[in-house]
Amino acid sequence: MNTSKAIYESPFFPNEPTRPGIKTAIPGPEGKKAVEKMNRFMDCRSVNLIVDYQKSLGNYIADVDGNYLLDVRYAQIASIPVGYNNRALYKAAFTKEMATAIINRPALGVYPSEDWAETVSSSILKVAPSGLNQVFTALAGSDANECAYKAAFMFRRQQERGGAHVEFSEEEIRSSMLNQAPGAPHLSIMSFKTGFHGRLFGTLSTTRSKPIHKLDIPAFDWPQANFPQLKYPLEDNIFENKRIEAEALSDVERIITTYHLPPCAVIVEPIQSEGGDNHASPDFFRGLRALTKKYNVLMIVDEVQTGIGATGKFWAHEHWNLDTPPDIVTFSKKAQTAGYYYGNVELRPNQAYRQFNTWMGDPARTLLFRAIIDEIERLDLVRKTAKVGDYLYSGFQVLASKYPNEVVNLRGKGQGTFIAFDSPRRDIILKKAMEVGINMGGSGQNAIRLRPMLIFQRHHADILLEVIEKIIKP
Amino acid sequence: MNTSKAIYESPFFPNEPTRPGIKTAIPGPEGKKAVEKMNRFMDCRSVNLIVDYQKSLGNYIADVDGNYLLDVRYAQIASIPVGYNNRALYKAAFTKEMATAIINRPALGVYPSEDWAETVSSSILKVAPSGLNQVFTALAGSDANECAYKAAFMFRRQQERGGAHVEFSEEEIRSSMLNQAPGAPHLSIMSFKTGFHGRLFGTLSTTRSKPIHKLDIPAFDWPQANFPQLKYPLEDNIFENKRIEAEALSDVERIITTYHLPPCAVIVEPIQSEGGDNHASPDFFRGLRALTKKYNVLMIVDEVQTGIGATGKFWAHEHWNLDTPPDIVTFSKKAQTAGYYYGNVELRPNQAYRQFNTWMGDPARTLLFRAIIDEIERLDLVRKTAKVGDYLYSGFQVLASKYPNEVVNLRGKGQGTFIAFDSPRRDIILKKAMEVGINMGGSGQNAIRLRPMLIFQRHHADILLEVIEKIIKP
Repeated sequence: MNTSKAIYESPFFPNEPTRPGIKTAIPGPEGKKAVEKMNRFMDCRSVNLIVDYQKSLGNYIADVDGNYLLDVRYAQIASIPVGYNNRALYKAAFTKEMATAIINRPALGVYPSEDWAETVSSSILKVAPSGLNQVFTALAGSDANECAYKAAFMFRRQQERGGAHVEFSEEEIRSSMLNQAPGAPHLSIMSFKTGFHGRLFGTLSTTRSKPIHKLDIPAFDWPQANFPQLKYPLEDNIFENKRIEAEALSDVERIITTYHLPPCAVIVEPIQSEGGDNHASPDFFRGLRALTKKYNVLMIVDEVQTGIGATGKFWAHEHWNLDTPPDIVTFSKKAQTAGYYYGNVELRPNQAYRQFNTWMGDPARTLLFRAIIDEIERLDLVRKTAKVGDYLYSGFQVLASKYPNEVVNLRGKGQGTFIAFDSPRRDIILKKAMEVGINMGGSGQNAIRLRPMLIFQRHHADILLEVIEKIIKP
Repeated sequence: MNTSKAIYESPFFPNEPTRPGIKTAIPGPEGKKAVEKMNRFMDCRSVNLIVDYQKSLGNYIADVDGNYLLDVRYAQIASIPVGYNNRALYKAAFTKEMATAIINRPALGVYPSEDWAETVSSSILKVAPSGLNQVFTALAGSDANECAYKAAFMFRRQQERGGAHVEFSEEEIRSSMLNQAPGAPHLSIMSFKTGFHGRLFGTLSTTRSKPIHKLDIPAFDWPQANFPQLKYPLEDNIFENKRIEAEALSDVERIITTYHLPPCAVIVEPIQSEGGDNHASPDFFRGLRALTKKYNVLMIVDEVQTGIGATGKFWAHEHWNLDTPPDIVTFSKKAQTAGYYYGNVELRPNQAYRQFNTWMGDPARTLLFRAIIDEIERLDLVRKTAKVGDYLYSGFQVLASKYPNEVVNLRGKGQGTFIAFDSPRRDIILKKAMEVGINMGGSGQNAIRLRPMLIFQRHHADILLEVIEKIIKP
């Protein structure tokens, strides 16, 4: 289609491969050798690809056998936003400022650097969700969520005690050291079925996506509410989906009001990403916000996977137009640094050192986030992701109508490139895609989820659609 | 004492200040301004110093008001081993390899780089504790410990099921998703009173040092054993201390055999570092190893604070001469990267993706650890730390005999610079020390703990002893 080329933007990475290039089976001979070496000291059963990061560029990941794959797994499980070996990031990494941050890693809670306020203001805070101006920095999504839970528990207990000025009782102090109530209170965090929030002991108790994450690990007896399981296509199931969402909300209300360990917070992903790309409507989330307000339960929005532009908004929860902002928003992955935002300064505990740890983040990673944000702004990547997402979604709509048994429950309309569909032959399709140079991932039971980077353009979408059609065509 | 100068080594950092230099109160005017800026978005009550990391050098930390303090808090809560702005580290940070690792951060479990085996072999594995050749990489001490706990739970349940080949039961799979046994089993991790192992939900349940860490946070009902509370000086209390340690071991045995949630692992610090620098003898740890072997309970040695040379051995547990290595050793802080070592490959779970997360460490931080190890070897810093530690300890022995009410229960003999003492006026002493340019920290109820870096030399010891004497002299 030469005629349409005029509307195509010039590529962000002019030296990127023009197509996937596959020379060997994956892993090839060099890949196998590398796995063998690594297997001596680490478990390699999850390894997909031995990567040559020097050769990877833009949307293309290179492996050690000279293969180039179009990476729509949002590189590194949704963690590389602006392309492999992005020059702007390279420049930021090769500075005295970065080297200083790497070699003199501070304990930020005790010895912050003189420029930490400036670094945070020009990075993490610059993109803070509307209504939230406080941040607690962490290292990864899982500990960001756990620190948010701790904030929620401390906040609730402070309210129950009567305010920040009320001292801990002797009984609380004594029992906390014994891991008993009231010091270690009988409270909970509520999450949703098929949600994913991490794999540490607190977060794993709220993760409900797959048994493989949870088996054999002791868990808190915390509650899960039903997440709406919408019917597709949405336009044909409007009333049924309204009913489904209303029922899910009434499940939330039932748990909040009756569960034996009262939830002091609800955590929810804007799109359940590990659990199968499950969406709900803005109405549902507005209803959830109303319920949490009504019952004085904090609303924690887990944007670890959805944040930073991929849905066509910087934060996915911007799609909801909430009347009041969430109480807490957590982030990680594409931000390269992690933590949680909040607005209510009462979420600062009543005493110092309660929400605290040695490093409390990593300034080197925060400097990288700053460079990522600058690059997103320079190239206007959030808006462009919204557009290319619409284009890609239309392409999948065509595939869904041509191959209704292969592309099922297509979802993500108007959600940038955060697109997914159910695929009855999912694992075969993913394997075949890899063989022809598309690095694509699954989630939930049988979903294929797309996670292109923010530098994914129309010409990449064309390749992706063309290859997927070849694979699924009978 | 000009005559003794001959035995002094030449300084590792020739351009280091020769003494602390204090120009203003701390915080000074610039420090106060910086705190004010930061306080807009983060809780600053724990902030001690606003640091100028560009000007800090070697053992001296510089603040933004031009003050220079001798840093014997092992800079950044025991996390800077070879000096601020160490040139060798700076060189390592300013390489293409480092820049690539920073900007293309891999999901190591899925997409490791081709050189990951080489990077790990020349860093983390190069210094692996004797008998342990497997490593699982993490981000900080707390998640390293939590992953070790998960390994212990999975291992125990695998044994109970009858081996790696036995499938999970339907009941396990179903109940795990409900946070209920048997899928989420009724098992525990045992720790010791006054121990510290982190602040996430699993590790916090094993942390027993202070209520301030634990209050208001739900906890697992896991058990704690008594840690020996030795009497000092050791040489005058040999038999009494033997009795105390025997009692602690019998407490361990009682808990292992009777606790309602059976412990599948015991976690212990070689020296309880946050809980007050509490030591036990090698005999005690050999006894603990024997008990854990006898009852098939894993022994996890938490070397997050004690590891990497400060005790005069690379790993503190080398002081014990165990017959069989610990099952797991965890590390972080001075390693700049984190994780756990183990020897038994059966601690790899029976299926992939069970011990897993997005990043599983950070190659940039591993590259830094490699440079740290090279620097430690080049300067022979572990051996030298043992020697300067002996020198420093002797100096404190003199102070303890001159001021027996000020330097109480001196401990850490033969443990490098890992020296501590109880100080009835602890908080006043620490404050005064800061005013004259010594950055020193406390732990437990009333201990002053010393954590010089590995580049701490005799001339630094002399300054430290002189200043402390001035402060405590009536």
